[in-house]
Amino acid sequence: MEHSGIGIVRPSITRADPKAVAALSEFGVATIHEAMGRVGLMRPYLRPVHPKARLCGPAVTVLLQPGDNWMLHVAAEQIRPGDVVVAACTTESEDGFFGELLATSFRAQGCQGLVIDGGVRDVADLAEMDFPVFARAVNAKGTVKATLGSVNVPVVCANALVRPGDVVVADGDGVVVVPRERAAEVAAASAEREANEESKRARLRAGELGLDMYGMRGPLAALGLRYEDR
Amino acid sequence: MEHSGIGIVRPSITRADPKAVAALSEFGVATIHEAMGRVGLMRPYLRPVHPKARLCGPAVTVLLQPGDNWMLHVAAEQIRPGDVVVAACTTESEDGFFGELLATSFRAQGCQGLVIDGGVRDVADLAEMDFPVFARAVNAKGTVKATLGSVNVPVVCANALVRPGDVVVADGDGVVVVPRERAAEVAAASAEREANEESKRARLRAGELGLDMYGMRGPLAALGLRYEDR
Amino acid sequence: MEHSGIGIVRPSITRADPKAVAALSEFGVATIHEAMGRVGLMRPYLRPVHPKARLCGPAVTVLLQPGDNWMLHVAAEQIRPGDVVVAACTTESEDGFFGELLATSFRAQGCQGLVIDGGVRDVADLAEMDFPVFARAVNAKGTVKATLGSVNVPVVCANALVRPGDVVVADGDGVVVVPRERAAEVAAASAEREANEESKRARLRAGELGLDMYGMRGPLAALGLRYEDR
Amino acid sequence: MEHSGIGIVRPSITRADPKAVAALSEFGVATIHEAMGRVGLMRPYLRPVHPKARLCGPAVTVLLQPGDNWMLHVAAEQIRPGDVVVAACTTESEDGFFGELLATSFRAQGCQGLVIDGGVRDVADLAEMDFPVFARAVNAKGTVKATLGSVNVPVVCANALVRPGDVVVADGDGVVVVPRERAAEVAAASAEREANEESKRARLRAGELGLDMYGMRGPLAALGLRYEDR
Amino acid sequence: MEHSGIGIVRPSITRADPKAVAALSEFGVATIHEAMGRVGLMRPYLRPVHPKARLCGPAVTVLLQPGDNWMLHVAAEQIRPGDVVVAACTTESEDGFFGELLATSFRAQGCQGLVIDGGVRDVADLAEMDFPVFARAVNAKGTVKATLGSVNVPVVCANALVRPGDVVVADGDGVVVVPRERAAEVAAASAEREANEESKRARLRAGELGLDMYGMRGPLAALGLRYEDR
Amino acid sequence: MEHSGIGIVRPSITRADPKAVAALSEFGVATIHEAMGRVGLMRPYLRPVHPKARLCGPAVTVLLQPGDNWMLHVAAEQIRPGDVVVAACTTESEDGFFGELLATSFRAQGCQGLVIDGGVRDVADLAEMDFPVFARAVNAKGTVKATLGSVNVPVVCANALVRPGDVVVADGDGVVVVPRERAAEVAAASAEREANEESKRARLRAGELGLDMYGMRGPLAALGLRYEDR
Repeated sequence: MEHSGIGIVRPSITRADPKAVAALSEFGVATIHEAMGRVGLMRPYLRPVHPKARLCGPAVTVLLQPGDNWMLHVAAEQIRPGDVVVAACTTESEDGFFGELLATSFRAQGCQGLVIDGGVRDVADLAEMDFPVFARAVNAKGTVKATLGSVNVPVVCANALVRPGDVVVADGDGVVVVPRERAAEVAAASAEREANEESKRARLRAGELGLDMYGMRGPLAALGLRYEDR
Repeated sequence: MEHSGIGIVRPSITRADPKAVAALSEFGVATIHEAMGRVGLMRPYLRPVHPKARLCGPAVTVLLQPGDNWMLHVAAEQIRPGDVVVAACTTESEDGFFGELLATSFRAQGCQGLVIDGGVRDVADLAEMDFPVFARAVNAKGTVKATLGSVNVPVVCANALVRPGDVVVADGDGVVVVPRERAAEVAAASAEREANEESKRARLRAGELGLDMYGMRGPLAALGLRYEDR
Repeated sequence: MEHSGIGIVRPSITRADPKAVAALSEFGVATIHEAMGRVGLMRPYLRPVHPKARLCGPAVTVLLQPGDNWMLHVAAEQIRPGDVVVAACTTESEDGFFGELLATSFRAQGCQGLVIDGGVRDVADLAEMDFPVFARAVNAKGTVKATLGSVNVPVVCANALVRPGDVVVADGDGVVVVPRERAAEVAAASAEREANEESKRARLRAGELGLDMYGMRGPLAALGLRYEDR
Repeated sequence: MEHSGIGIVRPSITRADPKAVAALSEFGVATIHEAMGRVGLMRPYLRPVHPKARLCGPAVTVLLQPGDNWMLHVAAEQIRPGDVVVAACTTESEDGFFGELLATSFRAQGCQGLVIDGGVRDVADLAEMDFPVFARAVNAKGTVKATLGSVNVPVVCANALVRPGDVVVADGDGVVVVPRERAAEVAAASAEREANEESKRARLRAGELGLDMYGMRGPLAALGLRYEDR
Repeated sequence: MEHSGIGIVRPSITRADPKAVAALSEFGVATIHEAMGRVGLMRPYLRPVHPKARLCGPAVTVLLQPGDNWMLHVAAEQIRPGDVVVAACTTESEDGFFGELLATSFRAQGCQGLVIDGGVRDVADLAEMDFPVFARAVNAKGTVKATLGSVNVPVVCANALVRPGDVVVADGDGVVVVPRERAAEVAAASAEREANEESKRARLRAGELGLDMYGMRGPLAALGLRYEDR
Repeated sequence: MEHSGIGIVRPSITRADPKAVAALSEFGVATIHEAMGRVGLMRPYLRPVHPKARLCGPAVTVLLQPGDNWMLHVAAEQIRPGDVVVAACTTESEDGFFGELLATSFRAQGCQGLVIDGGVRDVADLAEMDFPVFARAVNAKGTVKATLGSVNVPVVCANALVRPGDVVVADGDGVVVVPRERAAEVAAASAEREANEESKRARLRAGELGLDMYGMRGPLAALGLRYEDR
């Protein structure tokens, strides 16, 4: 495993294949999470700061200290067009680590959006800029620039492991991490899953029951489900 | 009391009188809760998944197991046009029990909406379908189909007792349960309450104080409220 | 310090200078909080009940008892045009202390909006009336009128001290309290801060890094930040 | 179902058979909950106020109003020796509804202990008195006596339905409700379950694996569990 | 009001009269809170780190920054024998601000104990030292020494205002703040209250009901409480 | 990185060097976390189920499904004497995954204790057995055996990455993970840190201030801390 730690910046990271990232960007988080085998989901307390926020890109990872956003400035230099910044924190901290000025800077570097296990502010501006942010809180409280964290080390963000270059996808259903090596495979599995769902959708819309479509009646009866008249 | 338990489906339930349900559908949750004598309210952690969601109908009740949505498929068969599905869980579980495919199926059966003490996903699709859902969480995590629960037994959902056929009303203020036997009486009391509020509203809008309109000055003084100049 | 306590109403309060209030109303909560030296912020659990809510005005303070909104009626009489009502509670209570009827009354008295460390209801009506409310919960549960609290005594609301007449500013980023004596000074500091940010914004938008603009490279290196190739 | 509502006291209730209560008192909450078929458990936020608290008895039920303990005094008169008082609240309220004076009164009436979906105080005294209390919070904040609730109506306490006379059992693992009609049956099933566990315990202690004792290897393999060497 | 702010230490504070502090130390938090008229209580999330912790003394106040305990070292110099350190934070932060080394230092200066709206660590050592600590969390995460806060300015700690020199009393029921000017009066009222409770306790122990002792039957009937036979 | 996923058991894992594990077992969690450079700490919501619980050993990792403890039985076979079982879950789930029977089985295999991001039950028995458990909840609710998870894959438990064989140390201050490769180095750094603290403790006990001992007065003054007389 790549070494983690405090006080480190890694300028050279391996990003997921851009074609696989583009392919993944076609799918929703719920679909991708299923297609991956149901791993890699962040905790649902991360929520979009403005409705319709959505992002998909390789991760520049950040490890923040509580109430301190210095490493976000360090991360800005590591952003390549299309990247997503993923910021974890060494502890639970809901201060406003990020706002409109940093969003302006990140966007100028080509950043697609932010996932942060912390708070953000200037939410009206972020909505107006249409800059996608997934955060655990909104908080006007600003931060200091006093203590080192790291950039582009593996981090655990909202209970999910994220390595630099892994693909992070977020929408209204949550945030999922696709290991960079698996990006193409997961995109293919997502496509297959979605194709499969379309025919199910049509049958359900026509009134067929899942009980019949999925063949559930037998297994339910075998486990003892009983239909009672009172 | 009707027996509760695991592994039971009751196809024959007594729904509240449709006229009473229609009458109740004219009122907000806060009004109905007051008109009932302030009982029957679910905990406020249930929130609408998309703004303007609103529903009113007889309950098809479901008892789920954690991380398992099998019984929602069993429930689909028990839905009659206008019904609301109310899903409790044997424990606290915020997984995504319900999404766009089940919403398609439920709507095809005539379901008006869902109240669930659990999580849901595909929230952008649910909003686009305008399918009303009141839930405790949004979560991309899917569920399995492995363990029996029940359908149409009395359940406790978000701290309120719901029997099959009881009327469930939900809007932006919360979710309230009206026992089926009381539906007509509560609708009448709601109408009375609302009529009564209209005249109060006009007087308050004209600048009359509640202190005077409600005759509060005497009782306040009797309890010792004192007006001080510093 | 002004004495606090239960069962007291103070009709004569000293409001912040209206010019200073008007000046403050030009700035966002995050800016004002920074300009004050990062004190006076309420806890971030207070959230706007409808998007785009925003308020700025001198506080009429209320100390509520749990599940009892009597003192809001007492407060209505103390409102002067432009005031904001700030309601604390002697304990944590998320009942619906405030709804559309009280909003109608408050507005008739000239009230600009409400900040409440408790719950509110009739949220669809409040949105339609465009009456700004910042609250800790939405809850259809009504309240009684049985126990005395106070009006226009110093209160602690969501962990911030508010004295009657202090300026309260709220927007999507949170709620901040400016002591009435500091209102003009804080407005001036806010203006200065905002002017200063405009030039930074332009440089960041042009691609300059915060690392360079703020001169961070030296201090980071001094603390030992190291750039590693793997 | 027995009617619920506000402002009612029912002096005549049907308590579970004392022999069944005595039989149930031999078992832990986890065992009883399993023996009942895994229903009837209160939410785990109810915790014993002092370690080793344990109780088992028929319920005198109380419906409290927030911040108001009047109905606990009304309930005291309804206690018969061996009863457990179960206090729900019309809303979430963590004030200190109960303390050493009420415990003295309850004990004088023969009460075995208290389960309350609210707060309590005087916890050092309660421990010294060895009076078992299961509560959601400890809070020095006292309550008023101003608003009616009810005694001996069905209540929902911490998400479980409790009717007067039902058996309530609580220990360090939680609180479970046994419907009075099922008390004897559940006691018998608990005894059977416990007997069955003793032989399992011995085999596990001797080093036999659950995989073998429960015959799990086949079903696990059938579902596709694979043992990998790296 | 005394000015608050960041970056200030006030060596000269006015402590409550030592006799009044000694008198208050005889009473529990619940009694003192009642005797004060039910104001001044901290939020109940502050809990004793080890059982039987108890403290009563004049406050040395501290305003911390998140994840930064520098000001606790500054505060150590301001401690006089018998003082209690009360540490608020500019934001919610549960890091371990305090442990055994600081407890050793504080005790050497005569400190009686700590109340902190943050986390602490070394809890086994603190218990062994019998050093009373009331905190919101236990957390092994250490803190930095990088950013200024203040010492001996008024702070809001767990939603209660504390000025330097005010008396802080804490036990298993919670933490209450007595303004230094009211210390003697509140001690006297506490003594009166406790004397009054002794006779009530005896009557309740003898089986008299609160309904009769407090004369509640009339008021309950007046509000409409009805006793029903089913 | 070792691959993670569902439905996998890895019998051959590399455990940390036993000498390093033994060395680490001499130190507390707070010390080890500092010695590691302040990484690897689990979230503080994991708490010991009985006081004085403490453990240190190589991890057998488990990935559970919500409400399903099947994989704990699979894990039992993988335990070697001295191991600690670390159980993560694919979602937040507070059911009682573990109780006295499994503890009996784990102990028979040589297991030292359990760290689980979930609930446990039979807590009185666990205390009596003196079997150390660190969990997020106590819950009598049992679990099923229906869905595959994994054993000995890397897991994220309470926001910390744990690979099989890493050393997990837990005491009353929390739970920390030491990567197996770093175990000896961290033990050495812990010893050094502890030696260093002993001399500080003595000086602080003698009344020397941290301000002087750590040379803080200069840096504080440089940042502008000012001592004010009122």
